[in-house]
Amino acid sequence: MMSVHNNYYYSSLTKTLIPCSSIQTTNNPNSSFPSNIGFSPSVVVHGVSATSLWPSSSLLSCSSRRKRKGFKIEAIVAPVGEEEVERLLDTVKWDSKGLAVAIAQNVDTGAILMQGFANREALATTISTRKATFYSRSRSSLWTKGETSMNFINVHDVFLDCDRDSIIYLGKPDGPTCHTGMETCYYTSVNGLLPDSKLEQNKLAMTTLYSLESTITQRKAELAETENGKLSWTKKLLLDNKLLCSKIREEADELCRTLEENEDKSRAASEMADVLYHAMVLLAVKDVKVEDVFQVLRQRFSKSGIEEKSSRKAHS
Amino acid sequence: MMSVHNNYYYSSLTKTLIPCSSIQTTNNPNSSFPSNIGFSPSVVVHGVSATSLWPSSSLLSCSSRRKRKGFKIEAIVAPVGEEEVERLLDTVKWDSKGLAVAIAQNVDTGAILMQGFANREALATTISTRKATFYSRSRSSLWTKGETSMNFINVHDVFLDCDRDSIIYLGKPDGPTCHTGMETCYYTSVNGLLPDSKLEQNKLAMTTLYSLESTITQRKAELAETENGKLSWTKKLLLDNKLLCSKIREEADELCRTLEENEDKSRAASEMADVLYHAMVLLAVKDVKVEDVFQVLRQRFSKSGIEEKSSRKAHS
Repeated sequence: MMSVHNNYYYSSLTKTLIPCSSIQTTNNPNSSFPSNIGFSPSVVVHGVSATSLWPSSSLLSCSSRRKRKGFKIEAIVAPVGEEEVERLLDTVKWDSKGLAVAIAQNVDTGAILMQGFANREALATTISTRKATFYSRSRSSLWTKGETSMNFINVHDVFLDCDRDSIIYLGKPDGPTCHTGMETCYYTSVNGLLPDSKLEQNKLAMTTLYSLESTITQRKAELAETENGKLSWTKKLLLDNKLLCSKIREEADELCRTLEENEDKSRAASEMADVLYHAMVLLAVKDVKVEDVFQVLRQRFSKSGIEEKSSRKAHS
Repeated sequence: MMSVHNNYYYSSLTKTLIPCSSIQTTNNPNSSFPSNIGFSPSVVVHGVSATSLWPSSSLLSCSSRRKRKGFKIEAIVAPVGEEEVERLLDTVKWDSKGLAVAIAQNVDTGAILMQGFANREALATTISTRKATFYSRSRSSLWTKGETSMNFINVHDVFLDCDRDSIIYLGKPDGPTCHTGMETCYYTSVNGLLPDSKLEQNKLAMTTLYSLESTITQRKAELAETENGKLSWTKKLLLDNKLLCSKIREEADELCRTLEENEDKSRAASEMADVLYHAMVLLAVKDVKVEDVFQVLRQRFSKSGIEEKSSRKAHS
């Protein structure tokens, strides 16, 4: 088993994870970086950004120096206490082959991206590198999703189920997860289980909000086609900014009135649904994805910033 | 293997699924129901409601008669073409034990509720009964989630992954899924993988929107406690309906202006985040869950009704 107290850099130059133990660090702040990192000033950073992940260790001074020098750190990984991780790994009920189911889920959309298996080493690696890592049963080896496609899944948190034999990697994918180029691996539907049930390809497993977003996007795509007959309401909204904005303001007002006039809960839910639907049409017009909105929310409140940010705004 | 062209009733009286083939149907509309159903006029129905699920078969007349007689149908299930289901089952890559991973996901929230395994019979049963059904490896038998707790997962659609060895049951749970009473089985977090990583119980695996909802709900719960010092912005909003409504109207207006004044995409995403956050505080005041809002949206557009409904509203 690999040592879980190792920390890793991901270098897009060498396209590998490099254990920090193989990095020569030095107490001389003016020394150059070890050549095996493969960083260059032009390397773009992705991944971890929270400063809490930079511990007060030799790595911190290493990162700080890079920052001072104008280098951007590709991904610097939290050192996780070896004992604590070992204790966690001990609580997992590994099956007779030493595996547990590992499900990767998009932290913003909730989409199930893929499912694989993890062994002890894969889970330890995921925790230390924050890149979703699995054990390939066919190749009998570890593999980090994205190691060839560069579409890593940047893991924000890991969850175990009540039986301790199933794992969720909750994270943000860098790009499409499926090797086919689809956003997720689940794009084959049994088509609503209707009497004339049949397999339907290219229908992503989508929850309510994203189904609605997909419908609106489809209406937008259809606008280019010549239309005979009546436009749908969504198409009318897509074509008429004035109508759309008047509806958004009207629905927001109606939502407020459910509070001001003490209307019942179902009315509030219904008005909120109206606000959401119309606002999502605006997002479609602006080519903004709902996922981008959630990312804004996540970034705000992961910095415990949403309340402060809003407060600042209100007072400005 | 059970015959997949069977249709099933679920009877809460006998707590079993009863194949319709074992139900005596009759052409005489005045005849009484077969005794093996175990229905009584007091039995409460849950489950399938869409009329599309009631085919023009003897079952339909059976259901209709029950309705006329004031019986409520417990669950009546769509007949699925035997050949089509067999073809589907043939495409699944069952492992050496005849199993595939089956993940149950909430259609509205995206929450991963539980993960089990399905064999051919479990998947066939899920398709025909629309209740998430698994194969228990410990008991070597089928089990339908909810058969003892009554917290069924009502499956809306089934998805297969690109490898055809992993299944999503996308559906709506009747209540908490976990046997512990938690909403999902995934409530043990590795706490953000921070340097002082430790297991954290009772932290549900939640995506961005629901984390925010949870934070707002927590602020609301804290309102009762005596406060010393400054209130957070969320608490101020929770306590001041006038302020809250003025913010919702203001943020909706700002969202509209990103379109009217052709502001950039990131501005639109940011304003939509503001609208969502403030509207969610209103929902918290009204004790309405985001999930309820999505249910409204789903019910509207599953009836291809959202556009018509909105259209009606606009023209009224």
